[in-house]
Amino acid sequence: MIRLAPLPASLPSTVPFTGPETLERRSGRPFAARLGANESLFGPSPRAVAALQAAAQEAWMYGDPEAHDLKAAIAAHYGVTPGHVVPGEGIDGLLGLTCRLMLAPGDAAVTSAGAYPTFAFHVAGFGGLLHRAPYRGAHEDPEALVALARQTGARLLYIANPDNPMGSHHPGAAIAAMLDQLPEGCLMLLDEAYVDLAPEGTAAPIAPDDPRVIRFRTFSKAYGLAGLRLGYALCAPELAASFDNVRNHFALGRPVQAAGIAALSDGAHLAAVRAWAESARVRLNAIARENGLIPLPSATNFVTMDAGRDGDHARALVQALAEEGIFIRMPGIAPLDRCIRVSLGDAASLDLFAAALPKALARL
Amino acid sequence: MIRLAPLPASLPSTVPFTGPETLERRSGRPFAARLGANESLFGPSPRAVAALQAAAQEAWMYGDPEAHDLKAAIAAHYGVTPGHVVPGEGIDGLLGLTCRLMLAPGDAAVTSAGAYPTFAFHVAGFGGLLHRAPYRGAHEDPEALVALARQTGARLLYIANPDNPMGSHHPGAAIAAMLDQLPEGCLMLLDEAYVDLAPEGTAAPIAPDDPRVIRFRTFSKAYGLAGLRLGYALCAPELAASFDNVRNHFALGRPVQAAGIAALSDGAHLAAVRAWAESARVRLNAIARENGLIPLPSATNFVTMDAGRDGDHARALVQALAEEGIFIRMPGIAPLDRCIRVSLGDAASLDLFAAALPKALARL
Repeated sequence: MIRLAPLPASLPSTVPFTGPETLERRSGRPFAARLGANESLFGPSPRAVAALQAAAQEAWMYGDPEAHDLKAAIAAHYGVTPGHVVPGEGIDGLLGLTCRLMLAPGDAAVTSAGAYPTFAFHVAGFGGLLHRAPYRGAHEDPEALVALARQTGARLLYIANPDNPMGSHHPGAAIAAMLDQLPEGCLMLLDEAYVDLAPEGTAAPIAPDDPRVIRFRTFSKAYGLAGLRLGYALCAPELAASFDNVRNHFALGRPVQAAGIAALSDGAHLAAVRAWAESARVRLNAIARENGLIPLPSATNFVTMDAGRDGDHARALVQALAEEGIFIRMPGIAPLDRCIRVSLGDAASLDLFAAALPKALARL
Repeated sequence: MIRLAPLPASLPSTVPFTGPETLERRSGRPFAARLGANESLFGPSPRAVAALQAAAQEAWMYGDPEAHDLKAAIAAHYGVTPGHVVPGEGIDGLLGLTCRLMLAPGDAAVTSAGAYPTFAFHVAGFGGLLHRAPYRGAHEDPEALVALARQTGARLLYIANPDNPMGSHHPGAAIAAMLDQLPEGCLMLLDEAYVDLAPEGTAAPIAPDDPRVIRFRTFSKAYGLAGLRLGYALCAPELAASFDNVRNHFALGRPVQAAGIAALSDGAHLAAVRAWAESARVRLNAIARENGLIPLPSATNFVTMDAGRDGDHARALVQALAEEGIFIRMPGIAPLDRCIRVSLGDAASLDLFAAALPKALARL
């Protein structure tokens, strides 16, 4: 084989998350309930489904490389200009582009130990050095993150609010206050993937032109369109324009853009999802307690449950649930890995989970 | 603004191709015929449309990050293993990943002067230095490309067969013969985006395990699914696995994967597209000749026409056609820019082109 360039050659050949389809192929059995990937079992807006179906006939045309109408719709939704909006291939894709834009090999970046693995994947992918601050209980620790950024001279500080995998959140004002503490030259990456499902006041009150932060939002969670891979960054226009230096300009297909616009227009569906989510949280909390697990407060579309022992125990529980036909995931790093993470589901899926959990626990 | 890393900061903020939607917004009028982006006006397979529409209901689920079923379908289509297949976000996205894998800053790459601009975009994007060999008439020049690769110590040699923007092709055997002439450590990137529309024998006879080449194929041209952004690389398994080091693992959405599988299964539709394409070429050739333009032989889904003068003349003709409601494009660099490039179309679009061309010429 012809050798790769040194940096990519140094990276492992990996898939950051094992998909449920891979687990199904290994076991030879489909999952009965898909509660591991924080997808929205409540589904997308019927408007988005209709837009996708209508756009199927137009799939021979490339999507608008400037995503004009989608950017306009997102901008109107937030009261910003289209120049503040960078649509992209999910937050994953946008985090990759951001790391590419900001990190030279050897540059430092900061995250929490146990936070979103795909950020770590992208930092490594562009030669950055990732430093990790511990969680404070179930919360990312703003003070520790800022201190670590100062100590390491970090160029990027990643924080998710609400947090994945713990489901916790900080008031948006606490996140906004971090900006004044950031070291010079450090950009905050604020992952708000779950904010549409969080309590009022969780979205950080940050001026659209603030040059110190990029916020990331997605259609994959509350909007129920994970299968389309559509997200967007919100940031100051000068920084937003720099994504044009490196992005795959035709990456957003025509049906995807159409579905995003339709989904955003359906505020009633979003409100319904929020209500369904709250019911599902209550139900999951009860199921957890009935089985001796401690549900953590959730500002997301999943409930993280303390299984009461260590990572080996939680891993065995995830495996036992898989054998009962239930796909869930769990945090990857101690001490978070005492927990399992169960996505909110519809009634049928939660019934299956409620039936499987005691059986899985009995197997251990 | 917080400064970018040095390499991305050195890049221009650009869109390699101006989309027809942008031109429509500028003029305030929609195009009557969309013949500029080499999309397939014959449309996708009805099976692909049905698969997309069915998958809309499943859009809440992430696509399989390993694209297992899609890789299996592509592998079966070519008689290779799934390990030889790297699906990705169009050839554009795959070229970007390839440049990232192979190029360290300062590494040389070779292409033809006037060939696909997105390859140049990605080479620059990863700090590579691009060297360009001239076309020999309407053809890319294999000997000149290989000689330039040897002279510059290139790590990548890009060639499209059939060629875009000229529509010409070499016999596949001539492309395969280039491999033995490549300098040590140089990888050939063989863009076969249009090969499904080319004469028999155009696909290069290359062993699937040959480590010296990556072939690129797409669902955007003959398969009529440009709006989904789905392509794939075919190469030796060890090299294919290295894409896992850097790719956006969940980038291919669920409806996209389903549509690709369905499209590949519809050989009858592909055969029909090939027949429609041949009719459209005959018609476009006639329209060109009736108007004093010289149509070049086409192995693609477009006909490149020598407008008989220089680049300024051809650019004025493209503009005049736009004012008549016809979207076409043209090569960007002399001497190729004596030509205009007109995508094959359905009868209605070609009628519009036939009516507009004499009017546009009369305006000049």
